[in-house]
Amino acid sequence: MQADARPEGPSWTPAPAAGRPRRLTILGSTGSVGRSTLALVEAAAPGTFAIEALVAGRDVAALAAQAKAFRARLAVVADPAAHAALREALAGTGIETAAGPEAVIEAAARPADWTMAAIVGAAGLRSTLAALHRGGTVAIANKESLVCAGEIVLAAAARSGALLLPVDSEHNAIFQALDARDPAAIEKIVLTASGGPFRTADWATMRAATPEQAVRHPVWSMGAKISVDSATMMNKGLELIEAARLFPVPEARIEVLIHPQSTVHGLVQYTDGSVLAQLGTPDMRTPIAHCLAWPARMAVTLPRLDLATLGRLEFSAPDPVRFPALRLCRAALQAGGGAPAVLSAANEVAVALFLGRRLGFLEIAAVVDETLQRLGSPAVEGLEAVLALDDVARVEARRIAARRAAA
Amino acid sequence: MQADARPEGPSWTPAPAAGRPRRLTILGSTGSVGRSTLALVEAAAPGTFAIEALVAGRDVAALAAQAKAFRARLAVVADPAAHAALREALAGTGIETAAGPEAVIEAAARPADWTMAAIVGAAGLRSTLAALHRGGTVAIANKESLVCAGEIVLAAAARSGALLLPVDSEHNAIFQALDARDPAAIEKIVLTASGGPFRTADWATMRAATPEQAVRHPVWSMGAKISVDSATMMNKGLELIEAARLFPVPEARIEVLIHPQSTVHGLVQYTDGSVLAQLGTPDMRTPIAHCLAWPARMAVTLPRLDLATLGRLEFSAPDPVRFPALRLCRAALQAGGGAPAVLSAANEVAVALFLGRRLGFLEIAAVVDETLQRLGSPAVEGLEAVLALDDVARVEARRIAARRAAA
Repeated sequence: MQADARPEGPSWTPAPAAGRPRRLTILGSTGSVGRSTLALVEAAAPGTFAIEALVAGRDVAALAAQAKAFRARLAVVADPAAHAALREALAGTGIETAAGPEAVIEAAARPADWTMAAIVGAAGLRSTLAALHRGGTVAIANKESLVCAGEIVLAAAARSGALLLPVDSEHNAIFQALDARDPAAIEKIVLTASGGPFRTADWATMRAATPEQAVRHPVWSMGAKISVDSATMMNKGLELIEAARLFPVPEARIEVLIHPQSTVHGLVQYTDGSVLAQLGTPDMRTPIAHCLAWPARMAVTLPRLDLATLGRLEFSAPDPVRFPALRLCRAALQAGGGAPAVLSAANEVAVALFLGRRLGFLEIAAVVDETLQRLGSPAVEGLEAVLALDDVARVEARRIAARRAAA
Repeated sequence: MQADARPEGPSWTPAPAAGRPRRLTILGSTGSVGRSTLALVEAAAPGTFAIEALVAGRDVAALAAQAKAFRARLAVVADPAAHAALREALAGTGIETAAGPEAVIEAAARPADWTMAAIVGAAGLRSTLAALHRGGTVAIANKESLVCAGEIVLAAAARSGALLLPVDSEHNAIFQALDARDPAAIEKIVLTASGGPFRTADWATMRAATPEQAVRHPVWSMGAKISVDSATMMNKGLELIEAARLFPVPEARIEVLIHPQSTVHGLVQYTDGSVLAQLGTPDMRTPIAHCLAWPARMAVTLPRLDLATLGRLEFSAPDPVRFPALRLCRAALQAGGGAPAVLSAANEVAVALFLGRRLGFLEIAAVVDETLQRLGSPAVEGLEAVLALDDVARVEARRIAARRAAA
């Protein structure tokens, strides 16, 4: 076709209007995703981006250095005790400072074209919602937002007209491969999973698995919690819940495929038999750059995928017996209401106990399963109800884990 | 994102307006692509498509049966001697009939929303150009059009505003994976190749290869000529020339990747490191359906890609020593002018001689190489010049082949 075969409409034009930098707010700027985002901003042509606000948890030194380097308008530290240090570090720069949970939410609500929502946990949930209420484009790297409060998040985006872009490599891949113009043409979505360190392990090995073995992820370098989630495949189950929120496809048409090379990040199958997939090296800079530049693309300096050198890509179906987490996540999604929030909270508790050597590896899913059965799927109206249910689920999961560990 | 995250512009709406069937003309209706197209039309919801004209070479019985079954307005047979039989077969149906090369071109020029250009060779070139002059959407399955007369074809499309859709599975895959809104974001295009029957063969085996060995294609079931082109990889080289015409990417950024499973049909790498690919079973109905319904998608009943069962996809770089055809095609593209037409004509001559056991397998590329060197890249202005050069190249290639065979 000719270069203009896929016509441009005005709504495809990247906001904001050309000539003005895209104003960014980064919630979680000193974490891995935040640092990668700023590295991409630094490498972009001058005048492409400008920083409105940077928000960090407690790493004042890193936050202050970032704020100065990128000439942010505002730097916020979540820990109120760190405010004095931040003020001192930024004295004379003209950069505003603030601290505390309310200041985090105010920063998220300030006008900006684009927000990276990369604060983990409940704090991330509140600030993500503030950004969505404000509107604009919100790149979402905070899993809890979509898993525990998916309906609230989507309703907030719908009200303000905010656009949600997924940062997770799998969901970003689906977003790239998905033509949402005609949801009826989408037959299924496939999330790939590396299979984690126990992909080919036998039952006895998994039963005796230590935290050291579980966090040894074969492809991605990640924190301990998410590495354990990858080993149990709970991570993929949580991603399945996220995918059902993000994309116009019901749970029954979202599949998980084991793919040890983690090269194909996601696939979309259409009614004409076509399958579109996004591939790449396992590097978070690609999905972050995709979100930063969307609907255009930016240049990123990183090693390119080389399929000839890679040689082979392997695929297999996940084993439902050794990895019950996938079934639990599907069940929580089907149950609806607060069930996904219960699942997520119970899993956090169980993983922490496993990492503290107070729970066996296979017991993680068992604790989640029992907590889900105990609490059912209570209706949750609004964010406070979700957070209250989170507390209840943690208490219940701890109780169940203690009983199981003693048995 | 929300379902409306990728906004619809009016120009994305499938032409014609809803409520009226899309009027199709099929040039080459009794060939493999033509029959597959009609099978898809038959399976679509009533009122989706209507047939304007069907054009066949000489198979009157099949053409008449198609014309009646699909209530075509016009049936044309290229062979003038077959007109009486066609008229008789369609007597009383109200279906117009015509015959002869001029009638084929007139049929292609009749108003229609969508044309399948699937007549092979020079006859296909003339009728494809007639359809492009008329305008509308032209699904192009005639390789010669783009290889030998690429600039003429693109100029005709640009003049009338016709949209070219590629039917070839590889180019259709690239089209699906390509976001042409921002050509600067496209880093490279990758065409996959099965590698053909001699993918792992040694030099001695290739030197002694018989036509029977060469046409034994491992994945696709195709005619003898194209099967030999697959064995020499000339087919992939011709596709490389086509890709350079169809897509806003220069030859140097189009790569060929050996992929024996023929599951990934094409890939596009972007500047942010993302690679988008189209995958599917090796079945022409998928790309044809994609063209038929574009920019929407239609439902096609065929076995779906099952990566878990397939298990593995393999990739490797093509061997430039055993498969010089790729280099020859790149050289012809770089030389420009009439060089691709010379290459195509010389290859047709050499393949026919090989199939007639009058030329060795490795001599095919040698004859093409020598013909290219002899004739250079003469300027060609207009279709008649291309067709005249085609004749010259055939004579030269026959002469070269005879000398080489005698040596």
